[in-house]
Amino acid sequence: MIRFDSDYMEGCIPEILEALSRTNSEQTPGYGEDVHCDHARQLIKDACGNQNIDVHFLTGGTQANMTVIASILKPHQGVLCAATGHINVHETGAVEATGHKCLPLPSKDGTITAAQVEKAVLDHINDESFEHIVQPGMVYISFPTENGTLYTKQQLTDLYETCRRYDLPLFVDGARLGYGLGSKQNDLTLPDFAKYTDVFYIGGTKVGALFGEAVVFVNDRLKKDFRYHIKQRGGMLAKGRMLGIQFEELFTDNRYFKISRHAMEMAELLTDALKEKNYEFFYAPQTNQLFPILPNEKIAELRKQFSFHTWCKTDDSHTAVRFVTSFMTPKENVDQLINAL
Amino acid sequence: MIRFDSDYMEGCIPEILEALSRTNSEQTPGYGEDVHCDHARQLIKDACGNQNIDVHFLTGGTQANMTVIASILKPHQGVLCAATGHINVHETGAVEATGHKCLPLPSKDGTITAAQVEKAVLDHINDESFEHIVQPGMVYISFPTENGTLYTKQQLTDLYETCRRYDLPLFVDGARLGYGLGSKQNDLTLPDFAKYTDVFYIGGTKVGALFGEAVVFVNDRLKKDFRYHIKQRGGMLAKGRMLGIQFEELFTDNRYFKISRHAMEMAELLTDALKEKNYEFFYAPQTNQLFPILPNEKIAELRKQFSFHTWCKTDDSHTAVRFVTSFMTPKENVDQLINAL
Amino acid sequence: MIRFDSDYMEGCIPEILEALSRTNSEQTPGYGEDVHCDHARQLIKDACGNQNIDVHFLTGGTQANMTVIASILKPHQGVLCAATGHINVHETGAVEATGHKCLPLPSKDGTITAAQVEKAVLDHINDESFEHIVQPGMVYISFPTENGTLYTKQQLTDLYETCRRYDLPLFVDGARLGYGLGSKQNDLTLPDFAKYTDVFYIGGTKVGALFGEAVVFVNDRLKKDFRYHIKQRGGMLAKGRMLGIQFEELFTDNRYFKISRHAMEMAELLTDALKEKNYEFFYAPQTNQLFPILPNEKIAELRKQFSFHTWCKTDDSHTAVRFVTSFMTPKENVDQLINAL
Amino acid sequence: MIRFDSDYMEGCIPEILEALSRTNSEQTPGYGEDVHCDHARQLIKDACGNQNIDVHFLTGGTQANMTVIASILKPHQGVLCAATGHINVHETGAVEATGHKCLPLPSKDGTITAAQVEKAVLDHINDESFEHIVQPGMVYISFPTENGTLYTKQQLTDLYETCRRYDLPLFVDGARLGYGLGSKQNDLTLPDFAKYTDVFYIGGTKVGALFGEAVVFVNDRLKKDFRYHIKQRGGMLAKGRMLGIQFEELFTDNRYFKISRHAMEMAELLTDALKEKNYEFFYAPQTNQLFPILPNEKIAELRKQFSFHTWCKTDDSHTAVRFVTSFMTPKENVDQLINAL
Repeated sequence: MIRFDSDYMEGCIPEILEALSRTNSEQTPGYGEDVHCDHARQLIKDACGNQNIDVHFLTGGTQANMTVIASILKPHQGVLCAATGHINVHETGAVEATGHKCLPLPSKDGTITAAQVEKAVLDHINDESFEHIVQPGMVYISFPTENGTLYTKQQLTDLYETCRRYDLPLFVDGARLGYGLGSKQNDLTLPDFAKYTDVFYIGGTKVGALFGEAVVFVNDRLKKDFRYHIKQRGGMLAKGRMLGIQFEELFTDNRYFKISRHAMEMAELLTDALKEKNYEFFYAPQTNQLFPILPNEKIAELRKQFSFHTWCKTDDSHTAVRFVTSFMTPKENVDQLINAL
Repeated sequence: MIRFDSDYMEGCIPEILEALSRTNSEQTPGYGEDVHCDHARQLIKDACGNQNIDVHFLTGGTQANMTVIASILKPHQGVLCAATGHINVHETGAVEATGHKCLPLPSKDGTITAAQVEKAVLDHINDESFEHIVQPGMVYISFPTENGTLYTKQQLTDLYETCRRYDLPLFVDGARLGYGLGSKQNDLTLPDFAKYTDVFYIGGTKVGALFGEAVVFVNDRLKKDFRYHIKQRGGMLAKGRMLGIQFEELFTDNRYFKISRHAMEMAELLTDALKEKNYEFFYAPQTNQLFPILPNEKIAELRKQFSFHTWCKTDDSHTAVRFVTSFMTPKENVDQLINAL
Repeated sequence: MIRFDSDYMEGCIPEILEALSRTNSEQTPGYGEDVHCDHARQLIKDACGNQNIDVHFLTGGTQANMTVIASILKPHQGVLCAATGHINVHETGAVEATGHKCLPLPSKDGTITAAQVEKAVLDHINDESFEHIVQPGMVYISFPTENGTLYTKQQLTDLYETCRRYDLPLFVDGARLGYGLGSKQNDLTLPDFAKYTDVFYIGGTKVGALFGEAVVFVNDRLKKDFRYHIKQRGGMLAKGRMLGIQFEELFTDNRYFKISRHAMEMAELLTDALKEKNYEFFYAPQTNQLFPILPNEKIAELRKQFSFHTWCKTDDSHTAVRFVTSFMTPKENVDQLINAL
Repeated sequence: MIRFDSDYMEGCIPEILEALSRTNSEQTPGYGEDVHCDHARQLIKDACGNQNIDVHFLTGGTQANMTVIASILKPHQGVLCAATGHINVHETGAVEATGHKCLPLPSKDGTITAAQVEKAVLDHINDESFEHIVQPGMVYISFPTENGTLYTKQQLTDLYETCRRYDLPLFVDGARLGYGLGSKQNDLTLPDFAKYTDVFYIGGTKVGALFGEAVVFVNDRLKKDFRYHIKQRGGMLAKGRMLGIQFEELFTDNRYFKISRHAMEMAELLTDALKEKNYEFFYAPQTNQLFPILPNEKIAELRKQFSFHTWCKTDDSHTAVRFVTSFMTPKENVDQLINAL
């Protein structure tokens, strides 16, 4: 069985395993205050082209999302997001469990626009019952989105400007950030995220690490006391160096970008093959998550050899499915899938 | 600098690193539903001598504590614990952040008694304002305690019976469980914990793993839907197999017990040396955390070579310190410390 | 200015003022444990034709909603409701502040159906990522709805049966219960609510009282310890008798039903007049909240004499407005409005 | 049976009942935005000698405490208070239910000192594990305390200065503020509270009203959006004027102070009689709560005619009890109690 279910099916880049072995008997302080975390933070600052950011390492995406959001909002505030956003759909109410409502905006492809954010804020301000309604307190977007789509630089800067105008911190969930940056269709850079957001995270779990996300605070006002929040929400690893070591390896020799590019090359091969066979896509194929629409018999046939998610029926005889490539996807696997298509 | 600060200063047992390398290119489902997690669960059931337990893997102690406690209590209930308990002191209010009060009971050495629990429950029931007071809803103890001390089998079964009488789930924080089980002074076994508690966890982070705790539900009534809680509290690792692989290795060939015993041998060497030199102990030396009382000049001298925590002043010229050995502490390090004492 | 804004614009029925004066110097125990509360609870049991219910008095609707919901749900559960439901829209995230997500179902007129509830539950159960999604844990409906519409007996019993099948407590927000019961179009009785729900509340604030809601627990399993929850959520009045006295007066001589009927007669007069003038309604006029669609110039004209809410634009020259009658609305006021129309 | 149990056993001052009748048919906007609330706010500003305060009306003490505290603290912060403080003992964990730990300081008589607050803050800052410990985020005191004792002006200003130094908002629970102000032993004024605190509340429930507390924000930085918090926590009365009308009456003609003085005269009569009979007091008799130590037989005898709380055993034959006078206590009742003593 060859798996295209998701990008968290395998382990990590070999350099991480080597580094874990090499450093195993070192004695270091705990809780992220060791030399490896310090070094990884510096490498990320360099890659972001911004020495003024704060970098923290957390163990997973849901944890990063809820910890960041809960650290920013006041009790009466909620977080604007796409209705399809991970926090609104697939985190078992983690944000609500910290006391805050997700404020979903309609979205066809996973993205939301500056105009939608502005309208939501103005609708709130202009509602005569405004104090009876959750106040929009920040904006959450995913890059790439849960549907594999991207924001352009223009879209991101528009959102950021709107957020500035209404004093709303902009938070980017970058669980698959590498794959977004590595897409040919992308015009954003890592330094752009360290400029046009208030806080974002660089996903490691799905991009080369065993686990771990690097949360980057850009806005000075939000930085204070974040380590307390990490500890309170259960995200502070005693052997914090496990995260430092992994991000050290990912951000050495541009590996984070190279392995992301590999996943994208695999996705591009697959996209080209699907297009050639005249399959349509449910969402525009922009990153490592592809949503082709296949005939049901074809799906049944593929299932004998491959595992992948079905997304939704598109008509009685067709279904959109999801194929995901990763930093470790071998070209042979993609070739086999292409042959089987 | 040789570190006796804590038991999370080094990496993990070498078998874990080997297994991570060996399994790195395997493709497995995520979120703890892979073969390694399944196997690790079976190994733990076997080690517990109880096939009816539920085993879940979480990434850290604070996370395990808050997730378990929040899954059990109703909103108006709190958790009885030693005033010195980790949840009451060193988790940045993680339990309160889930809406529940810690109900601290006085403790000299980190333990609490069945009689204290019973009194707390009866005081609550008999208070005419009982509905205005947080209701005791469960009991939390640590084994070993934060002060390195142990419960005897009699003390644990007394607590368990009292908890049964008043319908209070008993939860044991086993962050350092191995070291408690490996102590010469201990008369409890792992199967005892799978019999005389409602839920407990087997600490991996401090006992041989890179990170990870195995939460064991003994009481059927508490098992339902726990995976939702793990996800909601940010503890569900996408590459869940990272935890399964680690506990597979720890519970193969009795490694968990052997490495714990090693730490205890190192602690016993040190204890004997300290006793020989007539140093007194602030808490009875029972596990891998030792709290000798040293002259302040001696401490200053040791600091040049060793790092360790000071605990509290005992008089103007003496201070209790904490030395902690781990599964990886080399005998040379202990010898050097003994020589320096 | 004559106000048709809402049903909470005036004071209370005169009998309550008399009773407050009559009892003012009595000394009674606090927190709802006085003779007036006891008597009121008995009157409500009698009116419900069910001696097995538990009755509690809270001070307002949002408080009743959040206290009941938080007392029922487990942390990973949410509450199914109409997207238009008060808890989802107009309570500043009170439910989320207790840690739970509102799970909105689409609704045109404020009602939801048994089929929608069943689909939501099955969708959840059948989702392969179910543990990553908030679990439906109960159902909330409003009777009458926020749009002035009603459930029929068939619709309520269908919902109740579906809730039974999937073990979901059914909670009815009865902030305006009297007006629903007093509608000519209604076929439900108070005893029906004490039979086909798990918990509901009888609104006092909008139906004759100065303030106060009577929460009625029908389902034995949900009754335990509710007074703790009231206290914890800030709803337990020290001079609890204020609530008992009010419900004593409301449930003496069928006053609750008589005054509700008065409001409905006023609403019916107005409905008839609006229909006669060929105005259309945005929602079916069933209770004391009427949503006629008026020409914008007519609205501007009415505003000189009357205050009321605009609901939404229906086209460039028309707007739906809301007129609300209450237990105290004088017929002269309605006549004046009819004349002005 | 004559009750000295508490100061919430009777109704309200007659002027409130008259005003409720007089205003009953008025139509006013809801949620505290009516003319009576506006007028009451102005009267309180005048009484506080501070036109820059914000005044909000809530329905009860627990609600006021939890709403204010939750509006101020960030998730990782707790509230310093006396171990005996109402929020720590008698509010069913309402503060914890909003996610925050109460940080109790030892207290013999219900008061805490500026030195204690400073030590708690410094202990936190200087703890090497500070990020693992709840951060002190504000200070809560009660005036008078739960033990009937008072802070002097010097003690209050010391606390306030310490709070300023460490950027900790100081919140005063004034559930019985009137009785504190009305004590002969008191040297503080209402304007002092509007100067030397950040936020406090003027208790109505126990001092002349049917129910209601007036929360006063002094510190500009804390004022923003408080009405959202009131709504979210269930404290916003639809017929908000009920609270406005009551505080209008209490703050007209100095009634709040006159009725408080009456309660204190009754308490002073009783105190003098108790002293004359050589009874000792468990806490210094300073306000309307008196804690004399009585022989057990005397208590049994009194119980036939009077109801009151026992506080605690002081030796085998003596018990401290609590007698409470109120704004409505008739002199005859006190005379009868004195005769019976």
